Amino acid sequence: MQLALIGAGRIGQIHAKAIAAHPGVTLVAIADFLPEAAKALALTYSSQAMSTEAIFADETIDAVLIASSTPTHAEYLEQAAQSGKAVLCEKPIALDLARTREALDVLSSNPVTCALGFNRRHDPQFSALKQALAGGRIGVLETLSIISRDPLPPPAEYVAASGGLFRDMMIHDFDMARWLLDEPISFVQATASCLIDPAIGEAGDVDTAMVTLTTASGRLCHINNSRRACYGYDQRIEAFGSGGMLQAQNETETRLRFTGEGGQVEEKPQWFFLERYAAAFAREIDDFVTAWQQQRAPLTSAHDGLEALRLAEAAECSLKEGRCIALDEIR
Amino acid sequence: MQLALIGAGRIGQIHAKAIAAHPGVTLVAIADFLPEAAKALALTYSSQAMSTEAIFADETIDAVLIASSTPTHAEYLEQAAQSGKAVLCEKPIALDLARTREALDVLSSNPVTCALGFNRRHDPQFSALKQALAGGRIGVLETLSIISRDPLPPPAEYVAASGGLFRDMMIHDFDMARWLLDEPISFVQATASCLIDPAIGEAGDVDTAMVTLTTASGRLCHINNSRRACYGYDQRIEAFGSGGMLQAQNETETRLRFTGEGGQVEEKPQWFFLERYAAAFAREIDDFVTAWQQQRAPLTSAHDGLEALRLAEAAECSLKEGRCIALDEIR
Amino acid sequence: MQLALIGAGRIGQIHAKAIAAHPGVTLVAIADFLPEAAKALALTYSSQAMSTEAIFADETIDAVLIASSTPTHAEYLEQAAQSGKAVLCEKPIALDLARTREALDVLSSNPVTCALGFNRRHDPQFSALKQALAGGRIGVLETLSIISRDPLPPPAEYVAASGGLFRDMMIHDFDMARWLLDEPISFVQATASCLIDPAIGEAGDVDTAMVTLTTASGRLCHINNSRRACYGYDQRIEAFGSGGMLQAQNETETRLRFTGEGGQVEEKPQWFFLERYAAAFAREIDDFVTAWQQQRAPLTSAHDGLEALRLAEAAECSLKEGRCIALDEIR
Amino acid sequence: MQLALIGAGRIGQIHAKAIAAHPGVTLVAIADFLPEAAKALALTYSSQAMSTEAIFADETIDAVLIASSTPTHAEYLEQAAQSGKAVLCEKPIALDLARTREALDVLSSNPVTCALGFNRRHDPQFSALKQALAGGRIGVLETLSIISRDPLPPPAEYVAASGGLFRDMMIHDFDMARWLLDEPISFVQATASCLIDPAIGEAGDVDTAMVTLTTASGRLCHINNSRRACYGYDQRIEAFGSGGMLQAQNETETRLRFTGEGGQVEEKPQWFFLERYAAAFAREIDDFVTAWQQQRAPLTSAHDGLEALRLAEAAECSLKEGRCIALDEIR
Repeated sequence: MQLALIGAGRIGQIHAKAIAAHPGVTLVAIADFLPEAAKALALTYSSQAMSTEAIFADETIDAVLIASSTPTHAEYLEQAAQSGKAVLCEKPIALDLARTREALDVLSSNPVTCALGFNRRHDPQFSALKQALAGGRIGVLETLSIISRDPLPPPAEYVAASGGLFRDMMIHDFDMARWLLDEPISFVQATASCLIDPAIGEAGDVDTAMVTLTTASGRLCHINNSRRACYGYDQRIEAFGSGGMLQAQNETETRLRFTGEGGQVEEKPQWFFLERYAAAFAREIDDFVTAWQQQRAPLTSAHDGLEALRLAEAAECSLKEGRCIALDEIR
Repeated sequence: MQLALIGAGRIGQIHAKAIAAHPGVTLVAIADFLPEAAKALALTYSSQAMSTEAIFADETIDAVLIASSTPTHAEYLEQAAQSGKAVLCEKPIALDLARTREALDVLSSNPVTCALGFNRRHDPQFSALKQALAGGRIGVLETLSIISRDPLPPPAEYVAASGGLFRDMMIHDFDMARWLLDEPISFVQATASCLIDPAIGEAGDVDTAMVTLTTASGRLCHINNSRRACYGYDQRIEAFGSGGMLQAQNETETRLRFTGEGGQVEEKPQWFFLERYAAAFAREIDDFVTAWQQQRAPLTSAHDGLEALRLAEAAECSLKEGRCIALDEIR
Repeated sequence: MQLALIGAGRIGQIHAKAIAAHPGVTLVAIADFLPEAAKALALTYSSQAMSTEAIFADETIDAVLIASSTPTHAEYLEQAAQSGKAVLCEKPIALDLARTREALDVLSSNPVTCALGFNRRHDPQFSALKQALAGGRIGVLETLSIISRDPLPPPAEYVAASGGLFRDMMIHDFDMARWLLDEPISFVQATASCLIDPAIGEAGDVDTAMVTLTTASGRLCHINNSRRACYGYDQRIEAFGSGGMLQAQNETETRLRFTGEGGQVEEKPQWFFLERYAAAFAREIDDFVTAWQQQRAPLTSAHDGLEALRLAEAAECSLKEGRCIALDEIR
Repeated sequence: MQLALIGAGRIGQIHAKAIAAHPGVTLVAIADFLPEAAKALALTYSSQAMSTEAIFADETIDAVLIASSTPTHAEYLEQAAQSGKAVLCEKPIALDLARTREALDVLSSNPVTCALGFNRRHDPQFSALKQALAGGRIGVLETLSIISRDPLPPPAEYVAASGGLFRDMMIHDFDMARWLLDEPISFVQATASCLIDPAIGEAGDVDTAMVTLTTASGRLCHINNSRRACYGYDQRIEAFGSGGMLQAQNETETRLRFTGEGGQVEEKPQWFFLERYAAAFAREIDDFVTAWQQQRAPLTSAHDGLEALRLAEAAECSLKEGRCIALDEIR
């Protein structure tokens, strides 16, 4: 696969590394709003800097990976579809449902292999959890708990443009919940506070949140978010059912354990997504390439992006109105 | 302390055992609705069966432990206070607020040492957690998660008279939340389903529930209940704050670990409260006796029973009305 | 059982506590070399101080527990047997084989219920390990590893009279090895150093040791001793076989876990044998009483004391001569 | 670095993979006793098959990696040195000391960058352990325990040519012991049995072994080997010292945990060295390339191979003679 990367920032660099390590993909071009950034990254990976116009016009390019700033996602996604290129787009497609739906319409009319950057579905541990659920390891699933805490809160200026915690951070957990609950979600209840950084509150957002989802059959799902965990990236999932419980636990760099006067000490969790989801990013590229080669659907879709966004909107609405929101209300 | 036990059923027997092992208490009398039950238990612990009338009339008796059926709690509690006896009363005082308040009024007018059977506060691990929180181990507390799952669902007939999951089961978690959050609770949100036994649903109750509490300063608390965990009694608490996280984990009979073709296997959690809270029951008696001797307040109070019940009512109300309930609404 | 305790020191006090908590035993008398010590302990447990002569002469006394200083064990053991009393004797019977054999001869001629203070066999975890081995959980046992480390080294004056690390400390591990290996031991190899306290070396002893035992069928057993582990009492056993591995792990006071910037911290192991083997001491008394009541053999015997001592002598000999010792050489 | 690989078998393939993933090395040639094997592997990695003669004659080749059969190692090592090529040689250099010393002499006269395939030194966890020891995390090191168990025993015909368990398997642990003990080893004691497969015994070897090493200052080291662990590759190290204990534990594919009626189950250890030491093989290549570029010594040396072999010979001698061997006796 001849692939072009749009966006040479933090997340673009992560993808570039994963692409370089994959034998089936060649990183043929890199575009960025800052040409220097594109050039620098191209140099590292023996690629070349190119404009997005040139990329979409180049028929030898099979696919694009969109890792540019959020407001550009929908437009590039549409251009990719219209130019017949496979596309792996970072989430979110857009911060509102209307713009997201427009992009989905363009995709409908221009069907290409399209994956969305819900990288966590590709994490080996969550993947094993999903498989165990599907295999009936815990009988009938009844409750799900997703804990997701970032190591450090973002700067207030980031928060302002982020769409808020539900759209920016919990969106990953909404996707994970949808994927693991494996049935339609009916209701959404949200509670949240600003406890970590008053500047986040002043920017109109929250930094600590709990959301409860209810599915059609009555399954309950708890999502627990914090923008700051001093011990690192806290990424755990607990699935409980009639036949037992599955727990995806935090990973550490090594399993070295020290025992001394202060107790028995193991390493703290890996610091952030770069470390924690390194394998997931590699597997995400692999799933995308393989799906394109085999003309099958990737593990994630643009539609997953739309549905996760609806949950985020429902949560925001629940928080504002202090009531349980039926997902049907969010259109 | 010369103590009389009212109630010779399951929970009464647990208390009898803890009393017998305490050097500072003599179990001088046992009453039960079924005189044979009182006699049998009295025989085991070299005590004597006695009517409740005789117990309250006997001036040599310092204290009573009320472990009879729920509808009798308030009345016996009042009689204990009126006869000037210290009293350790099993929760709940009553299933409704009005009756509970009446009993509290009698206690106000007849001040005696009075403790309520929120046994979990005496558990060594939760006690260590409370102490660590108070000592600032995790800085400022921000969120709390309480998981509490019984091994087996109760029979539907029990459910009918129980007051429902929030009053009967989650009441312990409400008390734990109040104790650990350490500030007034402002809002209550509840979600629940009947997923385990349809008979429970037919009896008008739920068997799986998630509740979110919000405190005055915005702390969030998640409570997670299930009436059935096939692996045993699941009793965990996670406190998260600015300086880290504390996790009270399930206990096992021993730490023996087997590694074989199927993986690395440790014992499942202890089966039920008899095993899990054996130490807590012993410490509860000790706290009660010591409080009486030193004329200080026990760790739990009748007021704690009232406040936990208000939370249960708020949860029930939230579930019914599908909205966030301000605790002030519940009077 | 009417029981007299001989020895009111540290280990005597531990036994007194376990006796007091057992419903089937009455602690009727306590003797000690220091009459005040006997009186003080008698006061605590509503017993009475008595001389050893009076104890052995008192026909209402069913049993004696010998917890006096090591040089007196054999003599009291013989007197107990000769006066027809059941006896639970702290290990060792004596520090040399000849004196031990004399006592065993007296026991042969005067058969009474006789147990030896190898308390670890009664530990719930090791007991579960033994049962799992017997039940074939790991197929055929091939290797055993026993780690046993004290929190603090004894004073050098204690060391001088102790008989040395092999007789004083590793004796427990030799007994555990015999019990778990469950077949005759053929060879003993020892290596040791003085690394912790030079005063121990000057007293002619070692403080760090590794011993390898080989059984008749070729099973291998590693014993690992240190006189000082700064994190507390380190008591672990690993059994490895054709079908897997069983590991008895250290116990902690509670399972509370803290996660912070420094890592994930669990409590250090319980500090010393008082805490770690509290349940074992209780079960040891129970086994002794029950054996006496049912006229069956207790879990431990005087013969076990002799055999453990032979292993200690073999280890000492191996260390001195730098060679593998056939146990047959030690008579 | 232009590198040629000699040996296209199992271990050669592992190295080829690690080489391909390293940006600083080009795999320019592959040789094998079976030309087809070389061709097949060359095809996979876009390299070319070549004879060893051609490789050593080619001046554009900077380095060779020797992964051919054991009897050829010494010769190729010498040729590499004589042709001025850096060399990473799989262990052992030879199965006897004399031949090993000859090769070392050639290396002395023809100094090139030379590393030996003690891959475990490069394992991230053992590396962290080494660093923690060096940083004084446990004060003064006193004892070391190394457990190393293979998942499956080798076929008897392999055993016959392997040089025996001490030379073939425990050699890795001897190297690890030398590296971590960090001072001269003075004495070696070995005990061993054939418990797993009688065919191994008939081939004159053992399959289960325990060795004790003593260092100059009296540190003790226990090594524990088994040729078969049904639960996978068991690779653990425990270092104990005046200030605490460090434990390198087994790694698992993921941290997913299941709790059900049978207990709390985590995955079994990774199956074998391919999985367990994947990161170590990658880091081994990196250390070799970096050492060559920077003209510094690699982490391992040919001398380490000689010293580990001396320990293996001492262990064999100890087992045969039933005595403790002074390492000075092995020349």
